[in-house]
Amino acid sequence: MEPVGIVRSCWPDRWGIPRQPGLAPSAWAELHLAPHVPTEALRGIEGYSHLWLTIQFHAVTHTRWTGRPPRLEGDRVGVFASRSPHRPSGIGLSLVRLASVDLGARVLHLRDHDLLDGTPVLDIKPYVSWCDAPVDARSGFAPAPPTPRPVFFDPGAWPLLDGREATARIIAETLAADPRQGRPGWKQMRVRVEDLDVHVRVDGEALVVENVVVWQGPR
Amino acid sequence: MEPVGIVRSCWPDRWGIPRQPGLAPSAWAELHLAPHVPTEALRGIEGYSHLWLTIQFHAVTHTRWTGRPPRLEGDRVGVFASRSPHRPSGIGLSLVRLASVDLGARVLHLRDHDLLDGTPVLDIKPYVSWCDAPVDARSGFAPAPPTPRPVFFDPGAWPLLDGREATARIIAETLAADPRQGRPGWKQMRVRVEDLDVHVRVDGEALVVENVVVWQGPR
Repeated sequence: MEPVGIVRSCWPDRWGIPRQPGLAPSAWAELHLAPHVPTEALRGIEGYSHLWLTIQFHAVTHTRWTGRPPRLEGDRVGVFASRSPHRPSGIGLSLVRLASVDLGARVLHLRDHDLLDGTPVLDIKPYVSWCDAPVDARSGFAPAPPTPRPVFFDPGAWPLLDGREATARIIAETLAADPRQGRPGWKQMRVRVEDLDVHVRVDGEALVVENVVVWQGPR
Repeated sequence: MEPVGIVRSCWPDRWGIPRQPGLAPSAWAELHLAPHVPTEALRGIEGYSHLWLTIQFHAVTHTRWTGRPPRLEGDRVGVFASRSPHRPSGIGLSLVRLASVDLGARVLHLRDHDLLDGTPVLDIKPYVSWCDAPVDARSGFAPAPPTPRPVFFDPGAWPLLDGREATARIIAETLAADPRQGRPGWKQMRVRVEDLDVHVRVDGEALVVENVVVWQGPR
């Protein structure tokens, strides 16, 4: 199955990405159409504020039939009762906001996403409120969004973020969604945003950015 | 990509199926798990009222980059601005109601669906209100559900439906969603529901069931 596009996003590493769309409103992504896709396939798409993307979990290498979602603190549920990326199909589903369409550049600018840089997109469908949002839905063990964590920046983290307020906002929103993912014992972690490697410590309820360095590993 | 299950449904023919889930609440479907899928993959799924199914449009043989949705009466939009089944990926997305789970039989009983009998299911994901239903969404050219058509049954259609009230309700709901799909010139049509072939005529705003016979073609 040939992808119809590839995602470029502010998150170059899957670890640390908020686990649902919409938790980091400053995060950016671009969907670049594949060369074989004509732009007429997008005609009328600007009438929709949100899109469903069918994606490949290209960085996930194995399937698990059960998993431990962050909310349940150790309890296992089936893969079909969760949004775990370790799916038998390898196919993901992501609701994103369509910010703007650049037909000349063959790019859709996206917001409110949870997409890893380099993600292949298999399909794009419009979000339609009256059939996609049942009013009487019950949402199992995840009935409400997680409470955001307080986030602070140590003075040592400032130099590289000077003049990069948008990037600092993405870092703050990424951490507010708590990248620990149900591993409450973790006291130190690193997350990547754009070209930066962000060193974080846990201080009670808060996450504190201790240092920000330019990522030195492979792109 | 190996399906994780197959759908059995009241609609054995894709022509005539309501084009979005939820328009025919009496319609039934069963999702039969594939032999290689352990039932533990369903653990916790009963906590959710609705599921996203990632499906194969197995009865669709070609892709179209643009199409004419029923609402627009002839205007073309891009495939990515529509829910047309003629998608480059061949992958569909369907929101269904989970009525009950029969672990012993390895079957999920579904409602409020739009699924063709025999549809391969690639993935099952829970519907989660707080991240799947953005409150500020704009829905392009399909901002509201279609107005249901009045449906009547001629006396000639009664004999086979005697004692089959559930089937008659599915027929009525299928026709109320107007299977003409933007072809207002049509005055006669046939739709299939379960083992029946339903002969219909258009009478002004109404759809009238003239005759119901047992389907004689291949299953």
